[in-house]
Amino acid sequence: MHRERFYTLTVSCPDRVGIVAAVSGFFAKHGGWILETSLHAEPPDTTGIAKYFMRLEIKADSLPFDLEHLRGEFQAIADEFNMSWQITDSAERKRVAILVSNQGHCLHDLLARWQSKELDVEIPCVISNHESLRRLVDWLGIPFHYVPVTPENKAEAFAQMGKILADANPDVIVLARYMQILSPELCAQYPGQIINIHHSFLPSFVGGKPYHQAFERGVKLIGSTCHYVTADLDQGPIIEQDVIRIDHSDSVEDMVRYGKDIEKTVLARSLRQHLEGRVLIHGNKTIVFR
Amino acid sequence: MHRERFYTLTVSCPDRVGIVAAVSGFFAKHGGWILETSLHAEPPDTTGIAKYFMRLEIKADSLPFDLEHLRGEFQAIADEFNMSWQITDSAERKRVAILVSNQGHCLHDLLARWQSKELDVEIPCVISNHESLRRLVDWLGIPFHYVPVTPENKAEAFAQMGKILADANPDVIVLARYMQILSPELCAQYPGQIINIHHSFLPSFVGGKPYHQAFERGVKLIGSTCHYVTADLDQGPIIEQDVIRIDHSDSVEDMVRYGKDIEKTVLARSLRQHLEGRVLIHGNKTIVFR
Amino acid sequence: MHRERFYTLTVSCPDRVGIVAAVSGFFAKHGGWILETSLHAEPPDTTGIAKYFMRLEIKADSLPFDLEHLRGEFQAIADEFNMSWQITDSAERKRVAILVSNQGHCLHDLLARWQSKELDVEIPCVISNHESLRRLVDWLGIPFHYVPVTPENKAEAFAQMGKILADANPDVIVLARYMQILSPELCAQYPGQIINIHHSFLPSFVGGKPYHQAFERGVKLIGSTCHYVTADLDQGPIIEQDVIRIDHSDSVEDMVRYGKDIEKTVLARSLRQHLEGRVLIHGNKTIVFR
Amino acid sequence: MHRERFYTLTVSCPDRVGIVAAVSGFFAKHGGWILETSLHAEPPDTTGIAKYFMRLEIKADSLPFDLEHLRGEFQAIADEFNMSWQITDSAERKRVAILVSNQGHCLHDLLARWQSKELDVEIPCVISNHESLRRLVDWLGIPFHYVPVTPENKAEAFAQMGKILADANPDVIVLARYMQILSPELCAQYPGQIINIHHSFLPSFVGGKPYHQAFERGVKLIGSTCHYVTADLDQGPIIEQDVIRIDHSDSVEDMVRYGKDIEKTVLARSLRQHLEGRVLIHGNKTIVFR
Repeated sequence: MHRERFYTLTVSCPDRVGIVAAVSGFFAKHGGWILETSLHAEPPDTTGIAKYFMRLEIKADSLPFDLEHLRGEFQAIADEFNMSWQITDSAERKRVAILVSNQGHCLHDLLARWQSKELDVEIPCVISNHESLRRLVDWLGIPFHYVPVTPENKAEAFAQMGKILADANPDVIVLARYMQILSPELCAQYPGQIINIHHSFLPSFVGGKPYHQAFERGVKLIGSTCHYVTADLDQGPIIEQDVIRIDHSDSVEDMVRYGKDIEKTVLARSLRQHLEGRVLIHGNKTIVFR
Repeated sequence: MHRERFYTLTVSCPDRVGIVAAVSGFFAKHGGWILETSLHAEPPDTTGIAKYFMRLEIKADSLPFDLEHLRGEFQAIADEFNMSWQITDSAERKRVAILVSNQGHCLHDLLARWQSKELDVEIPCVISNHESLRRLVDWLGIPFHYVPVTPENKAEAFAQMGKILADANPDVIVLARYMQILSPELCAQYPGQIINIHHSFLPSFVGGKPYHQAFERGVKLIGSTCHYVTADLDQGPIIEQDVIRIDHSDSVEDMVRYGKDIEKTVLARSLRQHLEGRVLIHGNKTIVFR
Repeated sequence: MHRERFYTLTVSCPDRVGIVAAVSGFFAKHGGWILETSLHAEPPDTTGIAKYFMRLEIKADSLPFDLEHLRGEFQAIADEFNMSWQITDSAERKRVAILVSNQGHCLHDLLARWQSKELDVEIPCVISNHESLRRLVDWLGIPFHYVPVTPENKAEAFAQMGKILADANPDVIVLARYMQILSPELCAQYPGQIINIHHSFLPSFVGGKPYHQAFERGVKLIGSTCHYVTADLDQGPIIEQDVIRIDHSDSVEDMVRYGKDIEKTVLARSLRQHLEGRVLIHGNKTIVFR
Repeated sequence: MHRERFYTLTVSCPDRVGIVAAVSGFFAKHGGWILETSLHAEPPDTTGIAKYFMRLEIKADSLPFDLEHLRGEFQAIADEFNMSWQITDSAERKRVAILVSNQGHCLHDLLARWQSKELDVEIPCVISNHESLRRLVDWLGIPFHYVPVTPENKAEAFAQMGKILADANPDVIVLARYMQILSPELCAQYPGQIINIHHSFLPSFVGGKPYHQAFERGVKLIGSTCHYVTADLDQGPIIEQDVIRIDHSDSVEDMVRYGKDIEKTVLARSLRQHLEGRVLIHGNKTIVFR
């Protein structure tokens, strides 16, 4: 990310001749200095539809108008090419809500990045179904909400979380090893805005206790996967994955420990890519502009 | 592997106090110079049985007797500790039979290593259900057997292959992208002696067209897996796995191409480990002594 | 790479507003269907000059004119933006000359890819300072030139190689573990067209016997580097690198063996990227469009 | 590491016949249950001396005597084979002193592991030449010592640190991105006990600003290295290294950010290996028993 203020435009639309010419022509006409351009043409799928994906960073002060005006001006092009699009402003800090259970490694890691401003966001709340990580969150002055979830109280619990989240108004919700399955309602309310870190190299070992499954199968690499949460458990679009080598001498406990290091790195990397608008969703897959 | 002639002892047995002392004491008593020792204690499984695995390399000329005599002398220790064991001689070149279909990358790679003597083995035969790779095999003076396999002739075809293999007397059979499922009889006849390279990161994407499956799922890493062949398709003990990073710009064809590089490397590495007696099978898992 | 015929445009020029608009506008005006676009803005260097790099693939039959005409039409834009540029045609197979010494693993690998048409090029010649790999090259019907190089005959030897290469008219010259330092004249004659695979993770272990150096230093990863050859030994722009993990049990011979697998993969990947016009040189660095 | 109390024996000695037999015989005689055994024979160096390295974990309650008694009994074997050796007790928590400057990512990471008891040690002190990380350390109840180091006060500063360390009585001193070069006296006082995380893939880019050096050279992978500190800057025995892929779009700032993730993981992994007695120093290299 650049130091100067910039706008980030992301676009997805049906592919045809002239998209890049129109968009880059628009910015050139207004003297807009483009810092980064990423483009991807997705070949026609089985229904014959080809799609185009685009991400641009434009220096804010190279344009002769402000963000609102820019959006207004861009609308004509968006309409012409039938674009899904958005423009964000690097000067507006994103809001990240975090959900966590008992395991603190991902939360610790995110909060350390936040303290050093590597992760330069607002954290309006941390929600947990356990009290164990409250002390750290409190110390940092972040509101901590304890919302226990039991088989009996699920409906109320998720309703309560829904309210907390509505107040928090997050740009993204991070499940930082949150060990409950979100309600379909919550999933539906924040499409493409909830990211989860799964402790296996999906689609291997879906569901619970993936390290135990990996141990039983005798794999030689274990991994973790960051993906968008959808109503289908562990099936949402994958943002990022990584693996680490293990061998026969490693117990399940060793694997859990190695895994934590990958989980926190993969999650942090994915969150950053999401926040920078580098991840575009296409069906059940992602385009991730490096 | 060492240049001087050496014996390789591999052992698996129930764990108890005194195994290493007995084995190392035996060799020390006879002045045996141990070049490498690898040991692994497998904790008790659900039935409460702990197992011990061992691999030693002993300089041949440091012992006062020959291989046959050594085996005779060692029998007493083996009996005492209820060992499954074998001793091989680095002076005896192993015999590797290769099965292949139309894709030549693994065969090319193995034969290049064989020509440079990196892979220092006998190759008594190459068997294929296609003629396409005959020219290369013929040129190298290796017997090439064309055994077409159709839904109708399966029984005869595998019987014919069984005869060719019996004549070839292989220490190991390598499925170098052989695209037919071996008969249960063949699998049973060579337990722990047939190794297959699967073009996915198992257990993800079992069965056919794994790269297409990976493309559909939108994973960010693809891999390949070398495993022992059992009657359960793609379920045998895993020897080695590796992965490579892909992104949204990669087509299935790109993934197939990247995958080939991993397949051939993982296969060659696994074959070498097998030939050096570094892979011990434990249930459906492997101990791989580096 | 795509199946249909396409043109590849590569551009480097000083950065300013309007480059992408001009280029994409040019193709849009003529109905050109753009298959891939890669862009990179290099921030101002110490002299204050920012540069822009671009690579486009355009479907050949979407344009109303042929290659020569296209080049003519594009010249006006190139002039306006002071571009270094070229346009190539996927229908013209590239010509790859290979230089090799005694170690055959990279040559074997390249030729296996060539036989399977994964590497879809002409190989007008293989030049070697040894006879050891002649048999393979002869068998494949590729002209093999034996040009011994000694301290005494260097000038003549490189002159002779210069002639062979001039006749071969290569688009790229691959040093596939060629263990002689090319003359400055040869380097100068093919700027950005000679690629070398170095058997270390540069800039570690420049010069001779890098695996011995790595062994002495006790590193835990070894690597290899593919780079363009310049008059400065091992100092040219790096195209690609990769590493593999080793440990204390690995001898120099083990490291050499592991290294070969990386060398051949890194070389093949880099060669492909070069042939597809994905590598743009910028000073002593490269932009590699994936 | 195992849950039950165990002793860890590490040995290095000249290689000869009978070492393993003597050691394992000793434990077998006393009914000692061996949990893990790692062995390494280092071939003769240029002076003709071969060395042997050994690490054993023995269940404490399987032996009929206590630690002191065990050490006494073992002395005879150690004398016979001219061993350097030590035996530690898993019940005694190790003491880790941490030195840090302004960059907190490694400290944050170590302290998060410590809070979750993944890193199950005493931290008697954190010493820093800056005040910036005091708040975190204070909050955790760990003594924080601010010892500014300037060109003028170096001698006193290091003397002061020497005193603090002497009081802390550390088993290991961790330079967690401590940006001062320790005095030769301190290095000499804690041989094989000071570990440093260097932010490059050594021996590439020794000295200052390695990411800037890497950026200038245009490498395609960056790394980090954990090594023992000796009087020779960046030249001590390497414990562990890792790398991450970068490309032309990454600025120095991006590289610094990626690098942090590797630094903290490599440091934590190395520290654990050191604490578990898995790292044996041999000249300027390490044996690291996995």
